[in-house]
Amino acid sequence: MTNRQLLLVSRPSGEPTRDNFKLVDTPIAPIGDGQLLVRHAWLSLDPYMRGRMNDKKSYAPPQPLNEVMIGGTVGEVIESRHPSFAPGDQVVGMGGWQEYSVVSGGIRKVDTSRIPLSAYLGPVGMPGVTAWYGLNRICEAKPGQTIAVTAASGAVGSVVGQLAKAKGCRAVGFAGGPDKCRYVTDELGFDACIDYKAHGDPKELYGALKAATPDGIDGCFENVGGAAFDAVLRRMNEHGRIALCGMISGYNGEPIPLRDPSILLTSRLMLQAFIVSEHMDHWPAALTELGTMVATGKLKYRETIAEGLAAAPEAFIGMLRGKNFGKQLVKL
Amino acid sequence: MTNRQLLLVSRPSGEPTRDNFKLVDTPIAPIGDGQLLVRHAWLSLDPYMRGRMNDKKSYAPPQPLNEVMIGGTVGEVIESRHPSFAPGDQVVGMGGWQEYSVVSGGIRKVDTSRIPLSAYLGPVGMPGVTAWYGLNRICEAKPGQTIAVTAASGAVGSVVGQLAKAKGCRAVGFAGGPDKCRYVTDELGFDACIDYKAHGDPKELYGALKAATPDGIDGCFENVGGAAFDAVLRRMNEHGRIALCGMISGYNGEPIPLRDPSILLTSRLMLQAFIVSEHMDHWPAALTELGTMVATGKLKYRETIAEGLAAAPEAFIGMLRGKNFGKQLVKL
Repeated sequence: MTNRQLLLVSRPSGEPTRDNFKLVDTPIAPIGDGQLLVRHAWLSLDPYMRGRMNDKKSYAPPQPLNEVMIGGTVGEVIESRHPSFAPGDQVVGMGGWQEYSVVSGGIRKVDTSRIPLSAYLGPVGMPGVTAWYGLNRICEAKPGQTIAVTAASGAVGSVVGQLAKAKGCRAVGFAGGPDKCRYVTDELGFDACIDYKAHGDPKELYGALKAATPDGIDGCFENVGGAAFDAVLRRMNEHGRIALCGMISGYNGEPIPLRDPSILLTSRLMLQAFIVSEHMDHWPAALTELGTMVATGKLKYRETIAEGLAAAPEAFIGMLRGKNFGKQLVKL
Repeated sequence: MTNRQLLLVSRPSGEPTRDNFKLVDTPIAPIGDGQLLVRHAWLSLDPYMRGRMNDKKSYAPPQPLNEVMIGGTVGEVIESRHPSFAPGDQVVGMGGWQEYSVVSGGIRKVDTSRIPLSAYLGPVGMPGVTAWYGLNRICEAKPGQTIAVTAASGAVGSVVGQLAKAKGCRAVGFAGGPDKCRYVTDELGFDACIDYKAHGDPKELYGALKAATPDGIDGCFENVGGAAFDAVLRRMNEHGRIALCGMISGYNGEPIPLRDPSILLTSRLMLQAFIVSEHMDHWPAALTELGTMVATGKLKYRETIAEGLAAAPEAFIGMLRGKNFGKQLVKL
C-alpha cells in the first residue's frame, strides 16, 4: 500500500507556485500498538497555511521543508490498534496533505448521521469555531448591533454573518464580485454585502459601506486587511470591538499598512487578534451550537471542491486569490 | 474686575499659530447663588487640546469658536456663594484658558499641605490617572514584564515608567534628545531610554529597541504613534497588550500609517484605545496611590512653565513639537 503525499520543498516568495510542492508516493509501514491508519476523504485548505510556508516568526513554527504540508483532514479509520477507535469510525484531525495518515491520537470521532463529513472541516470545524469565538468572545455581539465581516462568502465569514443574524444583529459583509455578494445576501441572509472589486476607489468603498451601515458598526470581524479594513474602521462606533482573525490580502507579502490608526484612538476601539487553536476550552460549546445549526438547516455553507491530491497546490493558490466560493476542499 | 481670556477664533490647519487665538479682557459679573469665583494659579496644556481645535468627529465635541479654550486649571476660591466651598479653598477644575472662572460645580478641593498645587494638573491629576489606568487596567502590567512607553519624559509617560518600576517591571522609554533620555533613566529610574531623534532610520530604531528589550515587550503604553510604535509592535511578545492613549505625532494632521498591522495578528496582540475621562470610577483609587507617591517623594515629575496667559499659545505650539520637558504649565 502506498500513500500519496504533497511535500513543501521550497518556500514561496510572494505567491506560491506549483514548484514549491512535490508529489511523492511513499509506502505505508505496518501500524504499531496504539496507532491507527486513517484514509482521508477530504483535505481542508485554509489561508493560515500560507503563513506556515514562511520561515519567519509567527504564532506557529514554520512548516519544515521536505515534509508533508500540514492541514486538517476528515476520513475513515481503516485499521486500528488503538483502544478508542475501530475501523469504520469517521474522524477529523490534522492529517496533512496526503491520502493516508498513521496517528496515535490528536483525532476525534464525528457523527455523520445528520452532518456531512466535509462540514467538520468547515462550519462544524475550525472555521466555524473561529467565527463563533471571534463574534461571541471578542466582538461580544449583542442584539441590535451592526457587525461587519470581510471575506463574507468564505468558510469563516459566512458563519460570522449567519451567527450575527441569529443573534438579532445587522450583518454587513464584503465579498469579491456580484455572484458572491448575491449569495451572501440572498442565501446566507446578510442585510447587505459590498462588492469590494466594484469599488476600487477608497472613497467609493467608504460610501458604499456608509450606505449599508446607517447606524455605524459595533463589531468588526476582520479576515482580509487593507482597503476594506480602513473603510470599516472609519465607520466604527465609539467603543467598537474588532476581532482580528486574518489579513489574507497581505499573506503573499504585499504591504498592507493601516492608513489611519488614529481612528482607533478617537473612537476608543478595542482590537484583539486571535487564533482559535489557543482557545480550545471554547470548542465544545461552539461545536454543539454549530452542529445543531447545520443539522437543522439553520447554518448554510458552500464548498469549492478540487478533485484529487495533485490538485491541492493549484486550489490553494486560487484560494489566496479569492477564486474559491465558500470553503475550499480537496476531495481525495 | 476684569478677566483675561484666550479664545479660539479660528481652526488651525496643520500646526496651530498665534493667530488662531485672541486675547480679550472681559468684565467679571457678580456671582449668583450657588456660584463661586476661582482665581486660577496654573493652566494645564495637554496634547488632547489639539484634537478639540478641529471641527471633526472625535470623542468630544469640537471647541466652539470665539469661546474660551477649554483646559484644566488649579486655583483658589476667592468668593463663594456655594455651600461646599469657602474663600481660600484650593481647587482643581476645567477652568479654561483664562485667569478667573465662575462655576457652580465640576471642581474639587485639593490638599496642598504635602502636594504642590500644580501637581494636581500632572502626576496627581489627569495625566497621572491616565498613566495609572493604561498601565494597570489595559496593559495589566505584572512583575517581571517589560513595559515600553513613548514620550517617556512627558507628563503621562514619566508616570507610566515609574509605576511600572514600582511594580517590578522593566521600563523602557522613548524620548527626544540626550537630555530627556538621561532624565528618564537617571532621574526617573527607567531601565533604558531610546532617543528617537538619534535613530531616524527605522532599522536603527528597531535595533536600539531590540538591545533595550532582550526579553521582548509585554505591555506598550502608546502616546505618539509613527515610527516608534512600528518598532515597538515588532518587539511585542505573543499576547502582548497595548494601551493606546495618544498619537501626538499625527495631531497636526500628518499621516501616520501603521506600517505592518499583520504583526498584531501574528503576535495575537490586544489593543485598547481609551480616554481617562470615560473611566471616572477608577480615579479615586488612582489618585490615592499617586498622591501618596508624590507626597513621599516616590514619584518624580518635572514641569516646564510658561509665564502669563499670553504665553499659552506659544507654549502649546512648542509642546506639540516636543519642546517642553515634562508637564507643560502656564503660571497665571
